Amino acid sequence: MPTETEALDIYKSSIHFDGLNIANFSREIFEAWHAGGITGVSCTCGLWEGLRGSLANVVQWKEWFEEHSDLIVQAHTVADIRRAKESGRTAVLLSWQNTAGIEDQLSYLRVFRDLGVRKMQLTYNTQNYSGAGYTELRDSGLTGFGREVVDEMAKLGIVCDLSHVGPQTSEDVINYAPEGKPPCFSHVLPGGLKEHPRNKDDRLIKFIASKGGFIGLSQFGPHMAKGNDSTIDDYVDALDYVIGLAGEDLVGIGSDASEGHGRPSDFMAWCNKDKGYARQLTPWGSQKVVKPLGPLADRAQLAVAMARKGWSEDKMRKVLGENWLKYLERILGE
Amino acid sequence: MPTETEALDIYKSSIHFDGLNIANFSREIFEAWHAGGITGVSCTCGLWEGLRGSLANVVQWKEWFEEHSDLIVQAHTVADIRRAKESGRTAVLLSWQNTAGIEDQLSYLRVFRDLGVRKMQLTYNTQNYSGAGYTELRDSGLTGFGREVVDEMAKLGIVCDLSHVGPQTSEDVINYAPEGKPPCFSHVLPGGLKEHPRNKDDRLIKFIASKGGFIGLSQFGPHMAKGNDSTIDDYVDALDYVIGLAGEDLVGIGSDASEGHGRPSDFMAWCNKDKGYARQLTPWGSQKVVKPLGPLADRAQLAVAMARKGWSEDKMRKVLGENWLKYLERILGE
Repeated sequence: MPTETEALDIYKSSIHFDGLNIANFSREIFEAWHAGGITGVSCTCGLWEGLRGSLANVVQWKEWFEEHSDLIVQAHTVADIRRAKESGRTAVLLSWQNTAGIEDQLSYLRVFRDLGVRKMQLTYNTQNYSGAGYTELRDSGLTGFGREVVDEMAKLGIVCDLSHVGPQTSEDVINYAPEGKPPCFSHVLPGGLKEHPRNKDDRLIKFIASKGGFIGLSQFGPHMAKGNDSTIDDYVDALDYVIGLAGEDLVGIGSDASEGHGRPSDFMAWCNKDKGYARQLTPWGSQKVVKPLGPLADRAQLAVAMARKGWSEDKMRKVLGENWLKYLERILGE
Repeated sequence: MPTETEALDIYKSSIHFDGLNIANFSREIFEAWHAGGITGVSCTCGLWEGLRGSLANVVQWKEWFEEHSDLIVQAHTVADIRRAKESGRTAVLLSWQNTAGIEDQLSYLRVFRDLGVRKMQLTYNTQNYSGAGYTELRDSGLTGFGREVVDEMAKLGIVCDLSHVGPQTSEDVINYAPEGKPPCFSHVLPGGLKEHPRNKDDRLIKFIASKGGFIGLSQFGPHMAKGNDSTIDDYVDALDYVIGLAGEDLVGIGSDASEGHGRPSDFMAWCNKDKGYARQLTPWGSQKVVKPLGPLADRAQLAVAMARKGWSEDKMRKVLGENWLKYLERILGE
C-alpha cells in the first residue's frame, strides 16, 4: 500500500486521462490541468449545436491549440497523448456529447473525424435521429439511421459514447456495434450504488464490459450513494464497485468537470434544455451539486485516495489512464 | 341512387378536396386537376429537406402561383378553397410529409405557417426528433420534443398528419393533441382490409375518429385487399369500410397521386431512402403499383363509382370534400 508521498510520485509518472470535461475552457482551465498533472482530457466541443455551431467550436479549439501551445496539444491518437506526457502538456481529445453536429448527414462524421472529433455521444438526454436519451418517456432503442451512424463511426475510428443515452438504446448499441469496436460509458455512475435514470445498472455495465467496452466514472453528488456528502473516498469506492462488475482493465475516470461555469449559469441552463432552448430536462442547475474530486488542479488527490484504499501501484496506473489509452487505441487506431 | 350522369353532375357542383398529392408538379399536373374537377389539393412540398430546401420549395410554389394563376391559387384557409371553386381554379394547401424542415427549431413552425405550409406529417417513415415512422424496428412514441411540436402546431393552426407515422407515436399524438385540434391520417388504407405496417388498424382509426380526427383514404394496390387487381370500386369499398369505423363525417380522399413521376424514378428513390440518401426503407419503387383512382383528369369517375355503390348525393358530397373542409376549418381557423 503506497504512502501519500509514494502515491503522489506514482501519479506524477502516470498517464492520467480524464474521459470527460465540460469546463468553461480558457487558459485558466488549461493551467489547472497542468497544475493537476492531467495528461489527457476528452473535451466537449459539441452538445446541441448543428453543423455550423460545431464547426465554429472546432475552429475555436484550433485557435486555442495555437495560442496556448505551451499548455495544450490536440490528440488524434493515443500516441499523441503519450507524447503530450513527455512534453509536459495536456492532450485534448475533441469530443461531442451529441451527434447533433452531423444534422442529418452521415458524411459529416468523416468531416469531423478528420478535424479531430474522435469521440461522440450518440445523443444527449433526448431523442435524436439515432436513438433516445435517458430523459425520454419511452426509449426508441437504436434507430435504423443510428445503426448507420454506429457503423460509420466504427469505420472512421470514432469512439461511441453512451453516457447520457437511454437504457434500451445503450443495450442496442452494445449489441449492434461491430466486434472489436465496442462503445463506452465515458462519464457515468453505477446504478447499483444509487438508482437513478442517469446511472447505469449492473447489468448494462457488465454487458458493455463483456464486449470490451469502457466505463469512465463521473462524480456528481446527487447521483452517488451518499448524495452531496460524498467524498473522494466514496468516489474510489464507486470505482471499486464498478471494477467488481467489469474487471480492473476497463474502468477509468470521466470526471464531467464543469469548472469555471457558475451554478446556475447560462451555459448550464442551455445544456439542460432540449436543443438548448426548449423544455427544461432535469431539475439540476438550480440544485446543489458536490463534485467529490475537487478542483482540476488538485487531481493528484485521487491517487492519494486510491492509495488510502490500499490500491496497488499497477491498479492505480491502470485506472488513472492506462486503461483508457488501451481502449482508445482499439477504437482510434494508429 | 344517382345515375352516372347525375353522379357526374353532383361531382361538378361538389367541392372535391384531395388530402395528398405528391405529383411531379408542373403545368401539366395543374391542367390535369382542372380537367379532373379537383377543387383543392394538399401538395407535398417537403419530405427530407431541411430548412433551406424547404424554403426553396415554398418559393418554387409561390412562383407557380404567379405563373399559373389561371389554374391554381394558394389556400391558407377553407374560405380560400371555396373561393377557388367559384373561380374555377384549384386551391393548393402546401403540406409537408415530415417535420425535417424545421430541423431542431420550434420557431420555424411559425415561419412555415406564415408562408402557408398548413399541414405537416410529424415524421416520414423513420425516426426524427418528434417520433417514429412506421418502418422503425421500435416505435419511440411521441417524444418530449414532439409534444412541443404538437402543441405549437395546434396553436399555429397547422394540421398534424400521422399517415406514415408509427402506431405508438400515432396513438400518443391522438392522446396528447389539445382538445378540438385532433390529428389526421391524410392518406392511409385500413389495416382491417389488408394487414400492413403502413396501414392503420381498426383500433387506431376508431380512436382518431373518437377525438374528431380525420381519415383520408389513399390508393395503393399492394396495400389493398385485392393487391394490384384493386379497382376504383374496391377503393369505394375501402371508403365504406372506414366509414363503418369512423362514421360518415370524418372520412375523405387522400389519393397520394404521384402522377408525372416515372417508376422507378430518381424522385421515388430519394423518397424511399432515409433522409433522401441513406438506407432504402421499403421494397417499393421497384414493385408494380396499381393506383385504382386512375389519372387525376379522370377523378370524376370516383363519383360514378360512389353512385354505383348506391351512395346518396349527401354522402358523396361529404366524402368528396365537405368532410375535409369541416375538419380543416377546425384546425386552420379563419
